[in-house]
Amino acid sequence: MNANGTWTVYLAGEIHSDWRERIDAGVREAELPVELVAPVTDHEASDDVGVEILGPEPDKFWHDHKGAGVNAIRTQTLLRRCDIAVVRFGEKYKQWNAAFDAGFAVALGKPLITLHPPEHNHALKEIDGAAQASAETPEQVVEILKYTIAKE
Amino acid sequence: MNANGTWTVYLAGEIHSDWRERIDAGVREAELPVELVAPVTDHEASDDVGVEILGPEPDKFWHDHKGAGVNAIRTQTLLRRCDIAVVRFGEKYKQWNAAFDAGFAVALGKPLITLHPPEHNHALKEIDGAAQASAETPEQVVEILKYTIAKE
Amino acid sequence: MNANGTWTVYLAGEIHSDWRERIDAGVREAELPVELVAPVTDHEASDDVGVEILGPEPDKFWHDHKGAGVNAIRTQTLLRRCDIAVVRFGEKYKQWNAAFDAGFAVALGKPLITLHPPEHNHALKEIDGAAQASAETPEQVVEILKYTIAKE
Amino acid sequence: MNANGTWTVYLAGEIHSDWRERIDAGVREAELPVELVAPVTDHEASDDVGVEILGPEPDKFWHDHKGAGVNAIRTQTLLRRCDIAVVRFGEKYKQWNAAFDAGFAVALGKPLITLHPPEHNHALKEIDGAAQASAETPEQVVEILKYTIAKE
Amino acid sequence: MNANGTWTVYLAGEIHSDWRERIDAGVREAELPVELVAPVTDHEASDDVGVEILGPEPDKFWHDHKGAGVNAIRTQTLLRRCDIAVVRFGEKYKQWNAAFDAGFAVALGKPLITLHPPEHNHALKEIDGAAQASAETPEQVVEILKYTIAKE
Amino acid sequence: MNANGTWTVYLAGEIHSDWRERIDAGVREAELPVELVAPVTDHEASDDVGVEILGPEPDKFWHDHKGAGVNAIRTQTLLRRCDIAVVRFGEKYKQWNAAFDAGFAVALGKPLITLHPPEHNHALKEIDGAAQASAETPEQVVEILKYTIAKE
Amino acid sequence: MNANGTWTVYLAGEIHSDWRERIDAGVREAELPVELVAPVTDHEASDDVGVEILGPEPDKFWHDHKGAGVNAIRTQTLLRRCDIAVVRFGEKYKQWNAAFDAGFAVALGKPLITLHPPEHNHALKEIDGAAQASAETPEQVVEILKYTIAKE
Amino acid sequence: MNANGTWTVYLAGEIHSDWRERIDAGVREAELPVELVAPVTDHEASDDVGVEILGPEPDKFWHDHKGAGVNAIRTQTLLRRCDIAVVRFGEKYKQWNAAFDAGFAVALGKPLITLHPPEHNHALKEIDGAAQASAETPEQVVEILKYTIAKE
Repeated sequence: MNANGTWTVYLAGEIHSDWRERIDAGVREAELPVELVAPVTDHEASDDVGVEILGPEPDKFWHDHKGAGVNAIRTQTLLRRCDIAVVRFGEKYKQWNAAFDAGFAVALGKPLITLHPPEHNHALKEIDGAAQASAETPEQVVEILKYTIAKE
Repeated sequence: MNANGTWTVYLAGEIHSDWRERIDAGVREAELPVELVAPVTDHEASDDVGVEILGPEPDKFWHDHKGAGVNAIRTQTLLRRCDIAVVRFGEKYKQWNAAFDAGFAVALGKPLITLHPPEHNHALKEIDGAAQASAETPEQVVEILKYTIAKE
Repeated sequence: MNANGTWTVYLAGEIHSDWRERIDAGVREAELPVELVAPVTDHEASDDVGVEILGPEPDKFWHDHKGAGVNAIRTQTLLRRCDIAVVRFGEKYKQWNAAFDAGFAVALGKPLITLHPPEHNHALKEIDGAAQASAETPEQVVEILKYTIAKE
Repeated sequence: MNANGTWTVYLAGEIHSDWRERIDAGVREAELPVELVAPVTDHEASDDVGVEILGPEPDKFWHDHKGAGVNAIRTQTLLRRCDIAVVRFGEKYKQWNAAFDAGFAVALGKPLITLHPPEHNHALKEIDGAAQASAETPEQVVEILKYTIAKE
Repeated sequence: MNANGTWTVYLAGEIHSDWRERIDAGVREAELPVELVAPVTDHEASDDVGVEILGPEPDKFWHDHKGAGVNAIRTQTLLRRCDIAVVRFGEKYKQWNAAFDAGFAVALGKPLITLHPPEHNHALKEIDGAAQASAETPEQVVEILKYTIAKE
Repeated sequence: MNANGTWTVYLAGEIHSDWRERIDAGVREAELPVELVAPVTDHEASDDVGVEILGPEPDKFWHDHKGAGVNAIRTQTLLRRCDIAVVRFGEKYKQWNAAFDAGFAVALGKPLITLHPPEHNHALKEIDGAAQASAETPEQVVEILKYTIAKE
Repeated sequence: MNANGTWTVYLAGEIHSDWRERIDAGVREAELPVELVAPVTDHEASDDVGVEILGPEPDKFWHDHKGAGVNAIRTQTLLRRCDIAVVRFGEKYKQWNAAFDAGFAVALGKPLITLHPPEHNHALKEIDGAAQASAETPEQVVEILKYTIAKE
Repeated sequence: MNANGTWTVYLAGEIHSDWRERIDAGVREAELPVELVAPVTDHEASDDVGVEILGPEPDKFWHDHKGAGVNAIRTQTLLRRCDIAVVRFGEKYKQWNAAFDAGFAVALGKPLITLHPPEHNHALKEIDGAAQASAETPEQVVEILKYTIAKE
């Protein structure tokens, strides 16, 4: 009597390591009825999407602003549709949009799993405190999904 | 790891040009998992639907009122069901119902894409300000949908 | 570019005439992607379901109360799931639960179609005022559904 | 350690007996921090308010419709603002708008108290089943309010 | 037993006639417990607020965009806080933001009163259809408020 | 004209008897379109899941806390997705999480069926009062589901 | 720059010890702008309120049911109005309604503080896991309120 | 006809500069009806509040976790109660909880003002994109509040 239907899991945050692929591999191997969704992870495409589609902006701020709008169409829709949000904080960069997505997910009542190395524990304590689970490796996230979705 | 399932996109606004067909053509060509929905775009049918179905009204106001009610069953349901709302403002007419639909979508938390010629920029600044993206051509809308839904 | 997917239409109210069957026939003939749902319309079964399943009650009030609870599991779930609510007021009986369902639907933001003979117009003016359309015949309801769901 | 602040109690339904006055008297005597609110109970004023303010309608249906709209501005706002809804069903008339208000209140998660003579028990079983309490006299409603708001 | 507390009424739309002052005068004369709120109605101040506060933009689109953001902080908060929304459509201009506000209000479940000359009836039929009342003069709006808030 | 689509029924509470299996058997025999979902009912796995996946905790409180978080990802998601919640209180143990799930379901507007022996009637009176039905045997729950979902 | 206005704190659960009085004393001593609210804590009055007001019931189940309804009018309203819910689990009794209130509060997004002796840690692990803080003494709750509301 | 009542403005983010005091000074000078609220900005008190009140934890992760829970009682309540959220990103530290609060505010539909030096523009582009305004100085925020709340 396991959990029902397909589960949509949103993978937010860091785009410079292979954590999404490792979760994907684990989910496939376990044959979980999971659909993994994510923001666009091609850094350059994501940064430039606004001006690529809607026309150039000489001012960097509006260049970024246009891109942020287009990316938000994807990320906010996926956050509203997902069952579980996983947010990854990597070693580098500010990654403020990852934290923003975490807050957005929690305010919508979505369960949150954070994924980060232990050296971020103190800086992430408020977000970890709002999460149902804090993992250090993608494989732990897969184990949580297995337990959540397929454990009899 | 692209976005999941079928996306419902509501195409509100102008009914006197072929912008919906151009978005439809682009979406099909790109083989996007998108279901395009729209209000009834047959102008006369839309105006007269109330009295056609529910009986004639000698007073024009109530003639219109009856039609508006029936059209609202369709439009409000589709706005609640859609993932993304696209609202087109054409060159002519007041098009107040297009603006009404935009406000309705934003209050429900739906991402909004506006579509209009640049000469409307100033008149539409509040609505563009509430939108995630403002496009000038249907093809740009298709590009946004491609990026949102199918970009790896 | 018609409306998307399956539409769930809840048919509340009167159980002593064939109006549901007439809507069903019309919907099938028009091959609309509509799933019609309804409360249990077998009057006796509906009245007695509480005590039939959960054990007898000597007091009529609690006999009724038990049945109302079981019926509410069905009706409130269907009202939450439906896209459109149709509420029929017949010639006889108080039919207060029909009016209750109408209020429940409106508070949830569901489009409402009322269906009743013109002699009820005055008594139903508040509910008709909250409805998007007021029909006199089941065939008119079918026409509204056709227009709402299948009109290009 | 009693309950806090002012409580707004909406008194919906029958307008042809003195039940509101009796609740009002009881609430004042008990010095409860209660604000009683209600629809307009002047029958004629309520029926004609639409055309009185917005201009005459030769067609009775639209005469009623205009009035229903204006009354809804008051009743729906009060239902959204109230803490508790009391709905009275009297001996006469259809009173469908009372039942509509009950459904509206329940869908918003407002506690509901019904008030009616026992001969309506069967006809009101669905609404009583959705209510937290069913009273037969206004004085019982006052007792419930005392207990709810002022009982230590 | 009149309606309770202070009512907040949001007056959206046209800024080039004295309709707000006339409603204000009527509300004061009737001593209604009403707080009237509105967007900034100083046209130039409203257009330029973004760049005035946050710095100049050479591009007109972003000039407008900045202003729209600041105005939205006011208008969206007031729409969420109001009890009733009144939306005025004047004789001139596109007034799309008025229609946007109307849609926003309706999606939030706020009662809507439209105010416009009869020549706009057809263009505004969808919005009038979603409104509880459509008035032609500010004095009619005052009468509706009197009835809604102070009628015994 | 029976109820539509698949119904998701969440079975919360006691894990030391075969009540879920009996409901499952009844649902299959009746060929109901029901998907039964449940928390993990392997007691030891449930207690230890946090430390099993996320690493050991020497302090029992945090051992439990980690497990509770992972279990909540499953239970809260299923409670949000279900159409009906069934909560079973057995003869033994505190079973506070069963009561917590009941409160969670009711606050979300989900219909609630309680299942417990009559000796718990008094202790469970508040929860039974918030439920649409209170059953004593799993077979009664199956009957309610049959009536709710498949009764013509 | 401390937190604003009056805070409403709901004190749910055990009625056989003086924990509410101790929180009340602490809150007054600290002069916090807190309004403490609670269910009726007079055990007998709470058990019998249904039949006291609404008339006797020979069947104990309905005796309890009537009382539960009246109590729910108070508790559910206060839970919806409170800013913070504190739920106390004492040494004795099942206290299922305390756990029910905790679940209700969490589903509404209210911050939850649990209060119980350490020997309940394991049985309450799911509820503690959903709480923002778990205290062992009423004085700790007062400290949390001080910090939350008055700490500069 | 300015905006109504008291406005609650939540000041999230950086705690190592005097930006809150500068907004406070500006708001007082302008005599705005604004209540400024904020998280606890005493860094050490905030970090240690969990163990100070609820008892020591040898493990740093749980030390932080306890504190995060207590802080969340304050911050999440204030975010739900505020009319406008201002989020400040300073020059130093990760400040992930500031970004989390921004996401939380946006998902609740609260207008958002970001406040940060231009060198953060690119890293904050997603959050700025979800904000109604992005300021560089506290004085600009005060100007926005003046315009929003007191501009005739």
